[in-house]
Amino acid sequence: MTKTQVFGHKNPDMDTVASAVAASYLLNQQGEDTQAMAQGEPNAETKFALEHFQLDPLPISQSCETPQVVLVDHNEAAQSVDNLDDVQVTHIYDHHKFSFSNSTPLYIVAKPWGSVSTIMYFEFKQAGIEIPAKIAGLMASGLISDTLLLKSPTTTDWDRQALPELAKLAGEDDINAYGMAMLKAGTDLSTRSDKDILDGDAKSFDMGGHQFRIGQVNTVDIDEVLARKAGLTAAMKEEGYEDFLLVITDILNSNSKALYLGDAPEQIEAAFKNKLVDGVLDLPGVVSRKKQVVPPLEGQF
Amino acid sequence: MTKTQVFGHKNPDMDTVASAVAASYLLNQQGEDTQAMAQGEPNAETKFALEHFQLDPLPISQSCETPQVVLVDHNEAAQSVDNLDDVQVTHIYDHHKFSFSNSTPLYIVAKPWGSVSTIMYFEFKQAGIEIPAKIAGLMASGLISDTLLLKSPTTTDWDRQALPELAKLAGEDDINAYGMAMLKAGTDLSTRSDKDILDGDAKSFDMGGHQFRIGQVNTVDIDEVLARKAGLTAAMKEEGYEDFLLVITDILNSNSKALYLGDAPEQIEAAFKNKLVDGVLDLPGVVSRKKQVVPPLEGQF
Repeated sequence: MTKTQVFGHKNPDMDTVASAVAASYLLNQQGEDTQAMAQGEPNAETKFALEHFQLDPLPISQSCETPQVVLVDHNEAAQSVDNLDDVQVTHIYDHHKFSFSNSTPLYIVAKPWGSVSTIMYFEFKQAGIEIPAKIAGLMASGLISDTLLLKSPTTTDWDRQALPELAKLAGEDDINAYGMAMLKAGTDLSTRSDKDILDGDAKSFDMGGHQFRIGQVNTVDIDEVLARKAGLTAAMKEEGYEDFLLVITDILNSNSKALYLGDAPEQIEAAFKNKLVDGVLDLPGVVSRKKQVVPPLEGQF
Repeated sequence: MTKTQVFGHKNPDMDTVASAVAASYLLNQQGEDTQAMAQGEPNAETKFALEHFQLDPLPISQSCETPQVVLVDHNEAAQSVDNLDDVQVTHIYDHHKFSFSNSTPLYIVAKPWGSVSTIMYFEFKQAGIEIPAKIAGLMASGLISDTLLLKSPTTTDWDRQALPELAKLAGEDDINAYGMAMLKAGTDLSTRSDKDILDGDAKSFDMGGHQFRIGQVNTVDIDEVLARKAGLTAAMKEEGYEDFLLVITDILNSNSKALYLGDAPEQIEAAFKNKLVDGVLDLPGVVSRKKQVVPPLEGQF
């Protein structure tokens, strides 16, 4: 009977899946008895990486079925399993803002680095444990996804050091080509519903009492996404979101535009020093929600 | 002008001073501009180690004088500088229970290991930065102090690995002899007042609404400390502590006795499954407040 399940955040993305797999393997090598889990279906990037490296998708559950839990790529209860209060958190590996409290010492490694996969890479190194090729490939994919192939401003020297080393362990000779193919796989929106595009990577933020929801979607053609504006806006209304910003990011040229629905257009314009035109805001040079979207909004609200 | 000060907890002990020095040096090597500080005078062990390795005591302040702060060996506001809310926490290195929250990603390494000096040793290793001999000596001292020369049940394999490597870097051929001399230096209570013995290492705990204060003092002769029972008890009353447990630990034989003043003698006896005799409780095999004193008390209250 497994003692500990390892969970990433809700709406699992590539880095959350990769770091759950990596943390579980590392801890098992250190004598723990853990199982990597996911809170939902893999997204398109993750499916691409799992198939490429011939790995199975993770078992899905919204609650932890073991007495102990390891959290990766999140630390806040709102992002976590439903029964977090009833299980013992033994480890946290994360790169987000921190808000966590418990009554016994536990293992926390949270660093403001580009991806949790990078943090896990250095955890393996510190423990002197080898990373199997397939897991290294998954970790490289998580790193690429969260840093947009090292182009996001969230990228650190630690990420730049880890990616070629993970690529080598994975046996990927041309990691840039693989990375671009994986990112592009994540941009095929033709089969995704409007609601799915909104919710796929959306996170909720409380900004001065204002409940804000911010989604992000990667593409190679922003206009193709904006052609679905009517449907996307209708879906926002249907879901009952009062304030929703959908950031549409061009991964080839590292720019974004955002689609906004809500009652605070002036603050949005002030935050980004740009005008909303028919609900659309130009965000030149913006690729990171965490570094370039959330902080200016927090400054306004 | 320094940008960041590095602070350990109130009532600084050996490990808090060693980890402040280590963290400041490591961060400066990585391009930061930091200064190691202390919230109070060094204790006897720390003075012994500073003199042995020819290092100056740290500057003392109860508040952070820079816009940024690094916390070592603590994470809770009650243990920290007075103006914690007004400065930005950039890094935390700790091994205590965790209760911290902030709005931007920061660097947190908190592990349930024997000492923060051990955690710092592996941080240097991960960053590929050499530890100067004197700082290695101080870190070995912090590790020895917190683990009672690797004898405390808080000791992990990471501590056992780090100590000989730090000793080698410090040029200490007989680390056991040095460590015992340092621990003994910390047990000279003849020059310390009753109040100082109580408060020197005391920490406050909220146990089910009960405000508990638990002190600990190391000795090579428990009876010598108990000979001062009348004075110690009078000092407890004078300080207005409602519930005070002073754990007196024999570092040669790894045993403790505790002196108790308070209105919950039955719970104390139940927690440790032993009888109070004239306010004194026998605690055979107990050396760690964190692992062997706090948890049974938390179970009772």
